[in-house]
Amino acid sequence: MSIRTSRLSRPLLALSRPLLLSTLSTSTTRPVRPTVPLPALRPVIPSHAMTMSTRTPDAAKGPKVHVALVQLPAAMPGGKAAQVARMREMVRDAVSQGRDAGEAVDLVVLGEMWNGQPSHDELVKNAEPIPAVGAPEASWPAEATTCREMADAARESGVWLLGGSIPEAADGRLYNCATVWSPEGTLVQTYRKTHLFDLALEKMTYKESDTFGAGDRLASFDTPFGRFGIAICYDIRFPEIATIAARQGCTAMFYPAAFNTHTGPMHWELLQRARALDNQIYVATCSQARDPGAKYEIYGHSMAVSPMGEVIGTAQEKEAIVRVTFDPEVIANTRAGIPLLTQRRFDLYADVSVTPPTANGK
Amino acid sequence: MSIRTSRLSRPLLALSRPLLLSTLSTSTTRPVRPTVPLPALRPVIPSHAMTMSTRTPDAAKGPKVHVALVQLPAAMPGGKAAQVARMREMVRDAVSQGRDAGEAVDLVVLGEMWNGQPSHDELVKNAEPIPAVGAPEASWPAEATTCREMADAARESGVWLLGGSIPEAADGRLYNCATVWSPEGTLVQTYRKTHLFDLALEKMTYKESDTFGAGDRLASFDTPFGRFGIAICYDIRFPEIATIAARQGCTAMFYPAAFNTHTGPMHWELLQRARALDNQIYVATCSQARDPGAKYEIYGHSMAVSPMGEVIGTAQEKEAIVRVTFDPEVIANTRAGIPLLTQRRFDLYADVSVTPPTANGK
Repeated sequence: MSIRTSRLSRPLLALSRPLLLSTLSTSTTRPVRPTVPLPALRPVIPSHAMTMSTRTPDAAKGPKVHVALVQLPAAMPGGKAAQVARMREMVRDAVSQGRDAGEAVDLVVLGEMWNGQPSHDELVKNAEPIPAVGAPEASWPAEATTCREMADAARESGVWLLGGSIPEAADGRLYNCATVWSPEGTLVQTYRKTHLFDLALEKMTYKESDTFGAGDRLASFDTPFGRFGIAICYDIRFPEIATIAARQGCTAMFYPAAFNTHTGPMHWELLQRARALDNQIYVATCSQARDPGAKYEIYGHSMAVSPMGEVIGTAQEKEAIVRVTFDPEVIANTRAGIPLLTQRRFDLYADVSVTPPTANGK
Repeated sequence: MSIRTSRLSRPLLALSRPLLLSTLSTSTTRPVRPTVPLPALRPVIPSHAMTMSTRTPDAAKGPKVHVALVQLPAAMPGGKAAQVARMREMVRDAVSQGRDAGEAVDLVVLGEMWNGQPSHDELVKNAEPIPAVGAPEASWPAEATTCREMADAARESGVWLLGGSIPEAADGRLYNCATVWSPEGTLVQTYRKTHLFDLALEKMTYKESDTFGAGDRLASFDTPFGRFGIAICYDIRFPEIATIAARQGCTAMFYPAAFNTHTGPMHWELLQRARALDNQIYVATCSQARDPGAKYEIYGHSMAVSPMGEVIGTAQEKEAIVRVTFDPEVIANTRAGIPLLTQRRFDLYADVSVTPPTANGK
């Protein structure tokens, strides 16, 4: 039996192995509605560890989402004040660029630890208490200066702002903490990095957990244009986070991050493409720009990847604004063409988004 | 504090984000034994669905493993007899090439459905009953002709043979079934493809499950040089399989496969690199070679990827033998440099290799 598929259907014809040619057939000669409905999202029960609403949104439906990744310069002379001032300028630039292009920015994303230099002393100096989610601004601690600037930036431009991460001072220690701000300047979500990088080798030791505490929950946030997951840098190496987010209806995972020039070229793009393709969602990272004089060479390359694993936007190492659009229809087409959602074998392996953590876990 | 690390330590210095420079320090000026032991494999309880021994091997220890991927020509004139004859020749070639290079081949891998053409009628014609694991050859059904040839090929060359997959006739239907043969010609493991590709779109329908039954268990096999996981083609899109295999001590995942020239360029390498990097194991695929006259254009590109996600060997689209070496020391170094094994947060998400399947699973 011959196979006739139009050129138009190619994007949907995303088969991994249609080996059995005789079972492959065109169903009609003229466009009609599919006889079988597109795969529906499985209803899932949120893990106890994921803070989000329980009503699962459908990432394959809804409006397009216009996102700007703001790759701020790292370690500017002038420290925190200079970083925050540049953040304000670049958020304004990102929003006006979107407006000029007729794709008004919905959501701006900043990088990891973007408000100062990465030395221990500087982190301690720049750390601030982060207000409770939803707390009225009048009740915020005076020291929450970066938070006030992020709230103002969101309000000023009328955008959602995923404020990358900043050093948070709480419980007498530091956390690597992300914040999310609504267009009204309300803090709607926080996420403390859950996977800390500790290393002990012959030639060197490195212990992030000496400085930072680890978060104790995963996080996402809801907007009128969909749900989005948040994790930070090294977290991207743990696939479960993106899988849980996708199964709970997220359109995208965002990773503020600061890979270096050693692992960056090897793994930065690969990890993002893997998380996107395996979970059929968008993935975006936001880095700081490289400080040419720094010992720690930041890779930069803030990036966004489609549900098919294609890079749809990227910066180089310098200061940059990357604008990309997330299209739920692309998610729908990807899931229809490669129906991973309906073909999983949860009789053979657990669903990490449903099963409660094991008692013998870490 | 300045950072001094020798060039030698670079492969181990695989940090994702050593942002806190002040906590990064060289511990000694001369080489000594690490003060902290390398991360040990967590003991895991095999899932009920995975057939393997319960004693977890350590993939980071043991001898090097020399592997040959045999990319056989697809759909030769002469059908099954010609395919099987060419298999015998190419296995001999692979083994003698290894011997000549001073890296005696331990394990030969074949592609998916390598013993005939991919049409439905041909699959039915070429299908054969597959003997029970461990059954004496005298008891095998007369129709198990491809199996006899694979057993002979393994015995003749004194190698382990992962015989790709062939159409298995059982229970009045077909299975896409992989077999593993010891150097003595004993069948030591089988695996029926567990994820079947079914698709119903406006312009086309494709239903692999109309022809094949799906397997009901995952599988790996033990050798004197380590444990290895098996899955087939579309299975590679389901990350849980490789994760379970890695957590149960596998050195590598093998995927006999037959991607096409549409999804091949997009996803073939990406999926392999992702499975390898996320699980810090080797991954290898074996395809058929492309049949230039066929409607189904096979991508070819049999490939092997290191635990760091680097492609260490690949074919093009034509008939080829790819020889690669898996080195447990590379696994050990990768896991020491990026200690995913010890830094997972099973308090935040389930361990798919431990948790029994959920009752509400598919």
